Amino acid sequence: MGAVKTKRMPRAVREQQMLDAAVRTFGQRGYRAASMDEIAELAGVSKPLVYLYLNSKEDLFTACIRREATALVAAVQAGVRTDLPADRQLWDGLRAFFAHTAQHPDAWSVLHLQARTHGEVFAAEVTAMRDEIVTFVTQLIAAAAREAHRNPHLPEREVAGLAEALVGAAESLAAWANATEGVTARQAATTLMNFAWSGLGDLMAGRRWSPPGEEPLTRPAG
Amino acid sequence: MGAVKTKRMPRAVREQQMLDAAVRTFGQRGYRAASMDEIAELAGVSKPLVYLYLNSKEDLFTACIRREATALVAAVQAGVRTDLPADRQLWDGLRAFFAHTAQHPDAWSVLHLQARTHGEVFAAEVTAMRDEIVTFVTQLIAAAAREAHRNPHLPEREVAGLAEALVGAAESLAAWANATEGVTARQAATTLMNFAWSGLGDLMAGRRWSPPGEEPLTRPAG
Repeated sequence: MGAVKTKRMPRAVREQQMLDAAVRTFGQRGYRAASMDEIAELAGVSKPLVYLYLNSKEDLFTACIRREATALVAAVQAGVRTDLPADRQLWDGLRAFFAHTAQHPDAWSVLHLQARTHGEVFAAEVTAMRDEIVTFVTQLIAAAAREAHRNPHLPEREVAGLAEALVGAAESLAAWANATEGVTARQAATTLMNFAWSGLGDLMAGRRWSPPGEEPLTRPAG
Repeated sequence: MGAVKTKRMPRAVREQQMLDAAVRTFGQRGYRAASMDEIAELAGVSKPLVYLYLNSKEDLFTACIRREATALVAAVQAGVRTDLPADRQLWDGLRAFFAHTAQHPDAWSVLHLQARTHGEVFAAEVTAMRDEIVTFVTQLIAAAAREAHRNPHLPEREVAGLAEALVGAAESLAAWANATEGVTARQAATTLMNFAWSGLGDLMAGRRWSPPGEEPLTRPAG
């Protein structure tokens, strides 16, 4: 292993290669089963160099979570143009989300499954990213409510609840799509858009569902 | 501690008391921080008796997950009458779900947060419960599609995707509702019903959302 040459490449490039190898290994093997030997070999570097650069398995895993969380949030935000109508923004955002999770299944496994399963410190890293996405979706739904023809009087709290529901649905569907043979990113985005937008669209148009035989429910979470 | 009397009460009753204390402690303190001393004290028994009955902290936690998962699935199933129309079944199921998670916030914290965060063995216990609920919701959506006036031709795979989306939305919303002051179970159920049913209702009526300027998307996940 001492024979591995590491001088030629800048540290930043080497680190990204180590992270690439780590995300793949953590995503496919799971955090516990993944070994630093395997990660070093896949990255084409010596194990001491991985420890020198990333310090420990815990720190390497945290670096993976941060890099992949940042990349996912950036991909969703880059997919959306805030000058377009709200349903178009949601559709573009969902396509960007499902395209990214489908193209980077190991990264999604690290974020959605591994990071949540191996202790509170890692889980907190993912929670920070999730909060950012919930805030983004909350603003999108609030903007949609403002631009609706009929003022739907959606209380702030209900908008927050809808954003939580939408993000939870997207997370669940991405995990399912990646685990199910033959489901494309576009199909997953379409399923969720049909589910979410028609429902949100009805709300924006002032049409609420109400239980059979009961008065229409007004301002349910105000 | 040797002075605690344990003879009078049958083992099954004692065990339930220990589990009550454990769910409360794990739910409020988190799995790592929860101590067996605290659980024993809250249950009004000696620590050796907890170990005698439940063996270890890991086994005690597993017993909590199993008991609470079974109770949650039973509550949802008991809330639904399968002879009623599909939207009524969904509404009843959602009300039962949010009522149960609101009334048992520590149990929901154990299932949704703690069990997923502290290793694959515990996470697998919760996955088994989740699969049961997804199957239940899948059957409900499939039944709704069958009873819709216009045959909506929902492919089996899209029904599965919708069920995943709905369960993910409910999980996310329950965690948010329990963490947000003043959100009632009925409000959470209403928010999700408005979100989910109007969307599903449009699908059942053959109305699909389609991107602006594109052909309506047909059979997106067939």
